[in-house]
Amino acid sequence: MEKDHFHIFEKEISDEKAIHYDVCIIGGGPAGLTAAIYSSRYGLHTALITKNVGGMANLAEKIENYPGYEGTGFELMQKFWKQAKKCGTETLSLEVKDVKKDETGFILELNNEKVVHTKSLIVALGTEKRKLNVPGEEKFLGKGISYCATCDAMFFKDKVVGIIGGSNSAAKAGLVLSKLAKKVYIIYRKDKLRCDDLDKKNLKKLENVEIIYNSIPIKINGDKSVKSIEIESGGKKKSLDVDGIFVEIGSTPVSALTQKLKIKMDKQGFIVVDDEMKTNVNGIFAAGDLIKSKLKQIVVAAAQGAIAAKSAQEYISK
Amino acid sequence: MEKDHFHIFEKEISDEKAIHYDVCIIGGGPAGLTAAIYSSRYGLHTALITKNVGGMANLAEKIENYPGYEGTGFELMQKFWKQAKKCGTETLSLEVKDVKKDETGFILELNNEKVVHTKSLIVALGTEKRKLNVPGEEKFLGKGISYCATCDAMFFKDKVVGIIGGSNSAAKAGLVLSKLAKKVYIIYRKDKLRCDDLDKKNLKKLENVEIIYNSIPIKINGDKSVKSIEIESGGKKKSLDVDGIFVEIGSTPVSALTQKLKIKMDKQGFIVVDDEMKTNVNGIFAAGDLIKSKLKQIVVAAAQGAIAAKSAQEYISK
Repeated sequence: MEKDHFHIFEKEISDEKAIHYDVCIIGGGPAGLTAAIYSSRYGLHTALITKNVGGMANLAEKIENYPGYEGTGFELMQKFWKQAKKCGTETLSLEVKDVKKDETGFILELNNEKVVHTKSLIVALGTEKRKLNVPGEEKFLGKGISYCATCDAMFFKDKVVGIIGGSNSAAKAGLVLSKLAKKVYIIYRKDKLRCDDLDKKNLKKLENVEIIYNSIPIKINGDKSVKSIEIESGGKKKSLDVDGIFVEIGSTPVSALTQKLKIKMDKQGFIVVDDEMKTNVNGIFAAGDLIKSKLKQIVVAAAQGAIAAKSAQEYISK
Repeated sequence: MEKDHFHIFEKEISDEKAIHYDVCIIGGGPAGLTAAIYSSRYGLHTALITKNVGGMANLAEKIENYPGYEGTGFELMQKFWKQAKKCGTETLSLEVKDVKKDETGFILELNNEKVVHTKSLIVALGTEKRKLNVPGEEKFLGKGISYCATCDAMFFKDKVVGIIGGSNSAAKAGLVLSKLAKKVYIIYRKDKLRCDDLDKKNLKKLENVEIIYNSIPIKINGDKSVKSIEIESGGKKKSLDVDGIFVEIGSTPVSALTQKLKIKMDKQGFIVVDDEMKTNVNGIFAAGDLIKSKLKQIVVAAAQGAIAAKSAQEYISK
């Protein structure tokens, strides 16, 4: 933060123009939304700060393993949000530009130049899609390169596509794309997929899906849009003609704010919490995909959000 | 188990009449049902052993804090179950009479004299309602004494009822009963309720609800049914005329089987697990209200069930 900028920040606080909350939740995915439901139900003045209600869960075209629900991720997230609002959560469709800790809690500077004060913070910022980092990836972004099969599959009706990756998200992408595309290659660096067995079984039944094991992408070629991908397959280079590439090689936590707050992270950048969702910083709790956890699923993120809210409530009432 | 009985048990196993599963889940509440959904989706041969699909969650008349859902507990649990069956879970509407560990896994004797073998076990037996242990409690059970306001409130339309307890379940009982009963006493041993603030606020608005603090029940009187309750209130004895008593003083884990399996429990009888839901016994996982955990909520139990299934899957594929 620049010095002048910082000055304004200080001034607004001293003017007591800041809005005061008990709990500010940063991030609007399943963890943040559930934290909002619980925090509001505990009678706490709660703000949900997010420009993306639903987060990455919005991208799921079909959810079958969130208990009690079958449908799109977007619809499910809208249900979460509706519940949070009904309980009294205020949604601020803004970004947090800067954050400071003082003796009474935390001061958040938002991107509308306003400042809010909060007694406690729940960080639920989720993760960002991992990139391939090969030539052509950046050039053809949105011109054949996608990080979300659910969002973009429809553009590849009767076309040939490649999926990079072999985990659950790659398998799901394969299942979605096989219904639309003429041919689907799944290009994976290992010798067997590491997705759920049910998805694996279903994938292998599909005649238009070909899994290419022990292979990594080297370069993406094209003119106005993607035309082919060069891969190294079992030590040999080869080229596949494709109209689109879906990158499904995982995600990394969103961590600029957490670094600023000196929240302890592991080597991969995931926030370290105890079983009550407490971080190393007093008054800061974390939940969802950006924490280190066994299973990255909506129901797990939601439970973590509920526990984080409970811990925030106990922290405040002390 | 008697010797003869044990003999039959041994025989059936040696006859190889046992049905073999990858995962047997004992208990059919939110944790067990979610474990079943996940286990089946991992492609594991999964049995859900329960005589009570839905468990205690069935008793909730109105659920507002399970993210994405509003409605009765029973309906939500039916949705969970439907999903589990769709994924391939087999439901055995039976009780586990006995259990043994051998080198290949676990042998369960069921109450239809059949035996099943399983590679891994997920224990999700939930909890049982705690009793008052005062004279008259047993005598008037079902004759004015209830452990479930949601189930029995309707029998007390325009009557006077007492609720014993001051936690969330007591508060919820108060809210439900106030709509039907003429008068509701909440009798609590402490000097303030320890329920959610929102419920507390709503309770205090109700004109027909009276909270009697620092009081414990001593005796329940009546003839054919409950007529009054004697309480000790701030050192003095007094009697309240009531037509019904709702006991809402918490729950204890169901633990006969877990003791037999030598699963480590804490002093209150809750199973001790690590953050992957592993118990101290190799191949046994636990989830839901019978484990030691921060927050007893449907969404938390469900997440624990999902994680337990993931851990069982990893255990089996080793």
